[in-house]
Amino acid sequence: MNKMPTINTLDDIRQILTELPGPDLEAARAAQAREPQLTKPAGSLGRLEQLAAWTATWQGRYPPRMKTPNAHVFAGNHGVVAQGVSAFPSEVTKQMVANFESGGAAINQICKALGVGLCVEQMDLDNPTQDFTENPAMTDTECAEAIRFGMNVIDEASDVVCLGEMGIGNTTSAAAICLALYGGNALTWVGPGTGIDKPAMGKKAEVVGLGVKLYKSHMQDGLDVLRCLGGREMAAIAGAVIGARLKQVPVMLDGYVSTAAAAVLPSINKRALDHCKVGHVSAEPGHKLLLEKLGKNALQDHNMRLGEATGAVLAVGLLKAAVACHNDMATFAEAGITDKD
Amino acid sequence: MNKMPTINTLDDIRQILTELPGPDLEAARAAQAREPQLTKPAGSLGRLEQLAAWTATWQGRYPPRMKTPNAHVFAGNHGVVAQGVSAFPSEVTKQMVANFESGGAAINQICKALGVGLCVEQMDLDNPTQDFTENPAMTDTECAEAIRFGMNVIDEASDVVCLGEMGIGNTTSAAAICLALYGGNALTWVGPGTGIDKPAMGKKAEVVGLGVKLYKSHMQDGLDVLRCLGGREMAAIAGAVIGARLKQVPVMLDGYVSTAAAAVLPSINKRALDHCKVGHVSAEPGHKLLLEKLGKNALQDHNMRLGEATGAVLAVGLLKAAVACHNDMATFAEAGITDKD
Repeated sequence: MNKMPTINTLDDIRQILTELPGPDLEAARAAQAREPQLTKPAGSLGRLEQLAAWTATWQGRYPPRMKTPNAHVFAGNHGVVAQGVSAFPSEVTKQMVANFESGGAAINQICKALGVGLCVEQMDLDNPTQDFTENPAMTDTECAEAIRFGMNVIDEASDVVCLGEMGIGNTTSAAAICLALYGGNALTWVGPGTGIDKPAMGKKAEVVGLGVKLYKSHMQDGLDVLRCLGGREMAAIAGAVIGARLKQVPVMLDGYVSTAAAAVLPSINKRALDHCKVGHVSAEPGHKLLLEKLGKNALQDHNMRLGEATGAVLAVGLLKAAVACHNDMATFAEAGITDKD
Repeated sequence: MNKMPTINTLDDIRQILTELPGPDLEAARAAQAREPQLTKPAGSLGRLEQLAAWTATWQGRYPPRMKTPNAHVFAGNHGVVAQGVSAFPSEVTKQMVANFESGGAAINQICKALGVGLCVEQMDLDNPTQDFTENPAMTDTECAEAIRFGMNVIDEASDVVCLGEMGIGNTTSAAAICLALYGGNALTWVGPGTGIDKPAMGKKAEVVGLGVKLYKSHMQDGLDVLRCLGGREMAAIAGAVIGARLKQVPVMLDGYVSTAAAAVLPSINKRALDHCKVGHVSAEPGHKLLLEKLGKNALQDHNMRLGEATGAVLAVGLLKAAVACHNDMATFAEAGITDKD
């Protein structure tokens, strides 16, 4: 295991981000060398071939492995809920955490169905972030602490980590982060979240626009954006992305909130998300736009918008299939199959 | 188990097709009634919600079940290979069947990864269909026999069946079937198959066009098209689609060849494929066009074009997740979660 550096402030995180390890090109080459020998027409497994190589590259290991996929769902509460941006009250965050812990939520069933381990992490739920229309959501110390928590949560024995969240109000934070990072019209970054109507979305966009305007001159990079407009669960996801990189664990991001949390990192190191795939594109409209900005393609589109890492975990089926095909298929020589004319 | 009717001729199949059972609307209503009670924002599981209801509807059972998914890969040989339409010689069909049986092919690994049973069915491999540029591919009796075989192969204990194929030359048959069913330019239905180049695709399109022209006046419906231009593995897939309907087993189609085989049925009963989903859209270009003609959306797009039921089996991960969420999630009342404002 890599030794985790000391982290007390966001500047410590900035330092770590400048020194991220790169891809394992030897593992990548080994994957590339085996692929054409397997008993199938060249390229016919399409994306599965790329996923196998990507897994090896970011696990820093050949052959790649997909025996221990894990999901982390981070939960946090948001002061901005006071502005009426959500269809559900803040207490639902804690109630849903209890639901995760008793096995009753969607993510529990999907993890069981796909053979993925589930860890639920409560981020100081009794202490919501500040309402960002009044104060920055977090102090530097609070934000750094949540990031550190996310970094430490990653187990280097994981073959992939799926990063999801639960937090009433957090699609508002995600929209504010995207507006701060990429600009544009606040309305294009805002969606129904848990199910608000059109007029409420107008109000949500106002809240988002106001937050971004308030801290514009204080936000020099993505970590400032995260601190001013994010939430503890989002900071933990950003931290988990960093921790996974240091521990050679590939990352599967989930929907809008999960991806927005990760999106604060490339402003500091443009290669910071190279070890991340996005499991699905959410029905929350900002997600598609965010993926375009990041230059990432989602692996699936099932019109889902639940969060909880559900879309990320669904994509583990693909990773398992990809790695199994790459590692365990017979070669043309082994199977005695006549090669192409 | 439903009693299987006597089948000796294609007219016997036509008769069966006119009497297919419809959806179980009671199971559909039960699924619709439970969905809004589950602990998630309404509609937030998107396609998974629809898949759970679809499974119940066509299993004719509530709650739906996804414990015993099975895949059937039908293999057949094609006389039209003599026209130089494939990058691989006909003997590869048998060699790949041996590879399936020894566990070395892609479909073996994907079935293992997703927990799906695999049955491989050899359709008289030493006796290829006739070269359809010279004679109809099959006689009425041969075609009916292969369809009956496919019907009988379906086990009513399957919770879903994934239908795939292996057969050197069969994308040529698929293209010919599509051209016969839907018209258009032969080139738009032809693709690289196992990996032929552009000039070879031109030749393949000529072969396809010639076949369709030869039997145009003899083909009154889709079963005639199947007999004149198809293959035994494709007839077996068409039969498996029918058998699954009679035994209340939902069907997951695979790529271009699998879908083309099923596509011969709606000309006789336009509801014949209502119990079928399509697991993925193939990179073989005709598949996308065929799905448009059938009015079906594929569940995934991973740029795959291998066949063997690989894309269909990958989609079983979605079905498992969908059914698990529907059946096992807590309701708002059970979890004591505050409802929407």
